[in-house]
Amino acid sequence: MTTLRALPLTAKAFAPFGEVLDATGDFRLINAGLCRRHHDRAQLDFGPEGRAGISIFKAEARALPYVFDLIERHPDGSQAFVPMTADPFLVIVSPGPDHSPQAFLTNGAQGINLHRGTWHGVLTPLAAPGLFAVIDRIGQTPNLEEFRYPVPWTVRAPD
Amino acid sequence: MTTLRALPLTAKAFAPFGEVLDATGDFRLINAGLCRRHHDRAQLDFGPEGRAGISIFKAEARALPYVFDLIERHPDGSQAFVPMTADPFLVIVSPGPDHSPQAFLTNGAQGINLHRGTWHGVLTPLAAPGLFAVIDRIGQTPNLEEFRYPVPWTVRAPD
Repeated sequence: MTTLRALPLTAKAFAPFGEVLDATGDFRLINAGLCRRHHDRAQLDFGPEGRAGISIFKAEARALPYVFDLIERHPDGSQAFVPMTADPFLVIVSPGPDHSPQAFLTNGAQGINLHRGTWHGVLTPLAAPGLFAVIDRIGQTPNLEEFRYPVPWTVRAPD
Repeated sequence: MTTLRALPLTAKAFAPFGEVLDATGDFRLINAGLCRRHHDRAQLDFGPEGRAGISIFKAEARALPYVFDLIERHPDGSQAFVPMTADPFLVIVSPGPDHSPQAFLTNGAQGINLHRGTWHGVLTPLAAPGLFAVIDRIGQTPNLEEFRYPVPWTVRAPD
């Protein structure tokens, strides 16, 4: 068993894998100044034969320490996860099967977008109801590859 | 001044305007049975020259009774609002300037997708931080029409 320490999710640390979707950085004021629009924050890519869709995911809450061996990726499209509650969730990503995974913990006001083809763990909320909107590719291909690490990883909470 | 009573948001009542994005109805079990995927719940339409984008909106919290006279629409694309907290928000829609608007109150676990060209009020959270992910059209056109009712409307809480 190998241990990972979850790190606080930041745009810089997450950049190789995708975007952090939050209300930081540049914005445009709209609606007579009453609303900030942080514009077009995700690099969406649904391939030539796919289209964007919005699905709702409801996942069982997990707890730290969290043990996993499975990562997966969607070769044909990006995938964004927007939490519908203010609870932090665990984000596991990996450069690939030959690399160690990395774990991040959101701050309760962050979603993520995974670039097309990015290896990641399954959706792991840390609190019920585990409710997310998912913006990903709708298409005819299986659009899924899975890999199991030969030895499981344990994710521990940040220091 | 004319009064509207906000109604609880239901898929049936909202159908002329768009979709309710929630974890009700059919789903596929994924991730070894630990996650329900309510698949492809929104009718997205970004027109021939637009593309999907994800932006983050942060809007000032409003309170009921809420007074407004402005409705707007985006002729070139659909627009979805996914709350990033579990707080109810107010949804105002209208068949058009010649019709009375309608008001709905979400239950704290619902997002909405407005069909392309649907008249609606500006984003009106009822609690801070007013944080939403918005999936709408990214493109070069203004994609905005506004209309002001000659007499303001007041939205009251459901009975």
